[in-house]
Amino acid sequence: MSRVRTAVILAAGIGSRLRNIHNDKPKGFLQLGDQPIIEESIARLVFAGITEIIIVNGYQNHYYDELKKKYPFVKTIKNEDFETTGSMYSLWTANELIKNDFLLIESDLIYELNALQTLLNSTYKNAILLSGKTGAGDEVYVGVNDNRIVNMSKQIEDIKQLGGELVGVSKISFELYKKMNAFAEKVFDKKSNYHYEDCLTDLARDVEINYELIDDLAWIEIDDENHHQRAVNKIYPLIKKRDEELQLSKKVERNILLNPGPATTTDTVKYALVVEDICPRELEFGELVEGIRQDLVKVVHGEGTHEAVLFTSSGTGGVEACVTSVVPEDKAVLVINNGAYGKRIQQICEGYNIKQVKFDIPYGDPIDFNKLEQIIIDNKDQLSHIAFIHHETTVGILNPINKVSALAQKYDLEIIVDAMSSYAGIPIDVKKDNIHFLISSANKCIQGMAGLSFVICSRESLNKTANYKRRNFYFNLFDNYTFFTKSKQMQFTPPVQIFYALRQAINEYFIETETGRAKRYEDMYNVLREGLIKLGFKFLVKDEHHAKLLTAIIEPEDPKYDFNKMHDYLYERGFTIYPGKGAKVNTFRLSNIGQIYVEDIKRFLAALEEYLQNNEISNR
Amino acid sequence: MSRVRTAVILAAGIGSRLRNIHNDKPKGFLQLGDQPIIEESIARLVFAGITEIIIVNGYQNHYYDELKKKYPFVKTIKNEDFETTGSMYSLWTANELIKNDFLLIESDLIYELNALQTLLNSTYKNAILLSGKTGAGDEVYVGVNDNRIVNMSKQIEDIKQLGGELVGVSKISFELYKKMNAFAEKVFDKKSNYHYEDCLTDLARDVEINYELIDDLAWIEIDDENHHQRAVNKIYPLIKKRDEELQLSKKVERNILLNPGPATTTDTVKYALVVEDICPRELEFGELVEGIRQDLVKVVHGEGTHEAVLFTSSGTGGVEACVTSVVPEDKAVLVINNGAYGKRIQQICEGYNIKQVKFDIPYGDPIDFNKLEQIIIDNKDQLSHIAFIHHETTVGILNPINKVSALAQKYDLEIIVDAMSSYAGIPIDVKKDNIHFLISSANKCIQGMAGLSFVICSRESLNKTANYKRRNFYFNLFDNYTFFTKSKQMQFTPPVQIFYALRQAINEYFIETETGRAKRYEDMYNVLREGLIKLGFKFLVKDEHHAKLLTAIIEPEDPKYDFNKMHDYLYERGFTIYPGKGAKVNTFRLSNIGQIYVEDIKRFLAALEEYLQNNEISNR
Repeated sequence: MSRVRTAVILAAGIGSRLRNIHNDKPKGFLQLGDQPIIEESIARLVFAGITEIIIVNGYQNHYYDELKKKYPFVKTIKNEDFETTGSMYSLWTANELIKNDFLLIESDLIYELNALQTLLNSTYKNAILLSGKTGAGDEVYVGVNDNRIVNMSKQIEDIKQLGGELVGVSKISFELYKKMNAFAEKVFDKKSNYHYEDCLTDLARDVEINYELIDDLAWIEIDDENHHQRAVNKIYPLIKKRDEELQLSKKVERNILLNPGPATTTDTVKYALVVEDICPRELEFGELVEGIRQDLVKVVHGEGTHEAVLFTSSGTGGVEACVTSVVPEDKAVLVINNGAYGKRIQQICEGYNIKQVKFDIPYGDPIDFNKLEQIIIDNKDQLSHIAFIHHETTVGILNPINKVSALAQKYDLEIIVDAMSSYAGIPIDVKKDNIHFLISSANKCIQGMAGLSFVICSRESLNKTANYKRRNFYFNLFDNYTFFTKSKQMQFTPPVQIFYALRQAINEYFIETETGRAKRYEDMYNVLREGLIKLGFKFLVKDEHHAKLLTAIIEPEDPKYDFNKMHDYLYERGFTIYPGKGAKVNTFRLSNIGQIYVEDIKRFLAALEEYLQNNEISNR
Repeated sequence: MSRVRTAVILAAGIGSRLRNIHNDKPKGFLQLGDQPIIEESIARLVFAGITEIIIVNGYQNHYYDELKKKYPFVKTIKNEDFETTGSMYSLWTANELIKNDFLLIESDLIYELNALQTLLNSTYKNAILLSGKTGAGDEVYVGVNDNRIVNMSKQIEDIKQLGGELVGVSKISFELYKKMNAFAEKVFDKKSNYHYEDCLTDLARDVEINYELIDDLAWIEIDDENHHQRAVNKIYPLIKKRDEELQLSKKVERNILLNPGPATTTDTVKYALVVEDICPRELEFGELVEGIRQDLVKVVHGEGTHEAVLFTSSGTGGVEACVTSVVPEDKAVLVINNGAYGKRIQQICEGYNIKQVKFDIPYGDPIDFNKLEQIIIDNKDQLSHIAFIHHETTVGILNPINKVSALAQKYDLEIIVDAMSSYAGIPIDVKKDNIHFLISSANKCIQGMAGLSFVICSRESLNKTANYKRRNFYFNLFDNYTFFTKSKQMQFTPPVQIFYALRQAINEYFIETETGRAKRYEDMYNVLREGLIKLGFKFLVKDEHHAKLLTAIIEPEDPKYDFNKMHDYLYERGFTIYPGKGAKVNTFRLSNIGQIYVEDIKRFLAALEEYLQNNEISNR
């Protein structure tokens, strides 16, 4: 009783008539724009809210298998007999992976987003997508009666009442899929070159299979040189244009948030919040959570060794959960404090009477590692953990994980990394950097919504805490972890809608890629910094210590400068700036995370310049 | 830079031509359907996402002032000179209340929802709504040029290029409003009978004022008997039909959740999640939170004496916050446990080493108040609080607040009421029942989304905890409270979107009213219970002890009965049922909260009967 979130792509075929264009690659790797058409199809499916993509490959399957590394929501399965079998055999092959209703798509198809949305919004459980007249030359005509399909044929004279032309995108219920398989298994005894369209036709008498018609749909199946030419010259540009329009039509008013999170999100993440009601103790929801847990670990490359534990809370809640759960009663944690968030860990320790050794550094200064080592040596016997902030958002400084980690290893300590506003914005590898615990939140660089924090834990380190004396109830890391792994239910009611948005946000992260996102953020930082220098601003933190995600800017001494007035002027123009927080000199802050672009930073710099000029604020 | 959430209704006029229909009441109190047209307009505005309604009244203003009691988001202001002044004077009068862009609406208008949505979605900052030809007889024609309005007149010959007819619903930016006021103040010196339409026309040359045209909009201004007849016979039924269609077109697939929350929500609450990005440390967001805090208190009638403190957490987090923050170090809390949630409070106390006196009762049995009093007497010296569950969701029992409260008063103790799944479902009065602390969550009977818990605290009791030794950090009640009241910011990042949904849910609660919601829930309970009895089911809790929000049903002994199979059968049909939880005999549970109706319960009972019959499960 919920919307379709799975897509199955049929991609086993050889595509021999196009060999001169895509060489030895499968047809899905034809390229018309910046990426192969299969990757464009994946991006389109993600945009439409699909969260699981099953590709049935065959010919040169390794090309498709490679996609799994980039897109964790992609699964592949091979039709070993691709040379001799038809598409129904491929579809049948996928039965061990298909567990739900799904969209069925052919890999050599280009099509507009509207095709997916029409089927996803269709009230029919089973719907074949039809288009108006294409004149493609190898049309499959679909005969209909009332709202049902009756038959399909390449000969128009076989059709009594024409519904339209078969596109190759369908919505298939799990129930229908089971019937298709049962029917096909009998046919395979006689012939294996059996196609899914034929199976649908064979079943259409007994099973209600409906259709949706989009009269002027932009689409084409690329089977030969002729199709390819038409795609390049006409259809592909039209699809690009239509998809852009459709995306614009749903647009939510756009604000450029330059505060360090919650960050600007995509509209698709916003709309992912709107889902049918579900009880979060249902297995269906448990599987959503399980997928998110796995992918949150993948973002920091902890597959196999690390576990994600999620809490309904702000990021601080996640930090409190971690610190109170993993430091044993008789040991102390060394807390590095060079910003308000380091200070906050110290406050948490105070609230719970957790033993700690404080290393306080003026806000804006980097860690002195010699001093850190000396403090470790001085307190070696009582220490079990070092806790610190990766990107200290108070000032924008980056505390290098590898250096802290090296010292921790040397003295046999575990590390707790608060990566609240760096996770997914700067590449992190929990294995290479020997990270035992890493905390972040859904609403920073992963670009989801606020309401969820998570701790990525080394499984080994987490298991050590099983019998530690509890310090609280809601925030115990081990209890939350075991409750979920045993029951596939969150221990306490989760923020259901925030999970769906996070699912979408994670998928979009993998679409952009780890390096793509880091580069976009860094490009914005560079443009921002350069622009601010031109305007005469000075910075709190030296460039070489910068995380490049947030800039703390020293406030002008000009008495005409007033942060609140500047804020309001920019706010009215759609830009949200952020005050300073306890640094050694007065600052204001600008963050460059979230779904914003270099162009937004340039517009912001222009608005800021205008404000300074209008008010004759000198910055020299 | 955010969407319009304020509406201003002009309702000062006398409406003398309709006196025989609405007697001495203002025109907004004309009744065509179940409610006066002003209340239908309010409901429509709430549906469209408006969260603040300012009514400028004058003639018989007390009728409008009465509305404030029912709808906390309604504010009124009186135009004292309503007899001699025009609508611009009324609009100007409201300047102490208007702080944002707003929709401007005339009170004697009936109109379809599409009018509001068109203006709210308009990309123009200032937009006057126009319709096609109405033939009403007293049309105001609007002249336009490009996308701007030029002039308005009742004489068509004054119009060079006709844009359409003036409806009386407009979107006005705060900037334009200030200009209108400045202009009008000069005019008032000469004449006070000045209308806002004239002011718009006077400004239209210098200021860009745009329009939106809905050609076949269903609307009418009811000025005389003639209009009234046309409204009754034609326009009002058309509006009803169109509004229903528009609401259906946005419909999210509907599941009937019979688990005890997260509950089924309205589509408007779901769509309220989709908002432009905002930094929650902005004052604009702080004001949203402040309004929600006040209204959460109003739901339980604690105005003036009680404060709401909100946490990003599940309901359990709210309980943990309360118990750990208010029981002093040297005192103990008496915890009544007749279900898993009473038990949970005991577990929280154990996690923190809070002193407690346990009163354990078999799950399904009511509190023995003589025994309770004896326990209090036995432990009097060490006790400071009694904690208990109002509606114990484990079994569906109601633990009466007034009886516990009476004992608490007698022995000078404070009470902590976990009203997780009763708040907003059963009327509660924190003053009458002397409730010191009451905990609930956004995703139960108030019908918002999960991710937020809140504690309604007696201000006096809360202030007593100011210097209590802290037991944790994130969940300290007093610190969260003072942080917000000092800064209008939540101490820790709140779940932004969940707040907007809660705002909508609270408004819809007030539209339904306290008694209306309680009655709807109770009606469902009665139908459910009766239907289950007919099917042969027996119940764990006696009817007289029932909260009437959840029924714990004793599982059939027939070996063919299997909860999971029954669950899956019903789940496929859109009904979510819930397993039992540690009661003294095996049960399953059905809750009757959320946006569901008696009709849904009847459909559920039919599906359940079908399941039992298909599987020949005997229940006798």
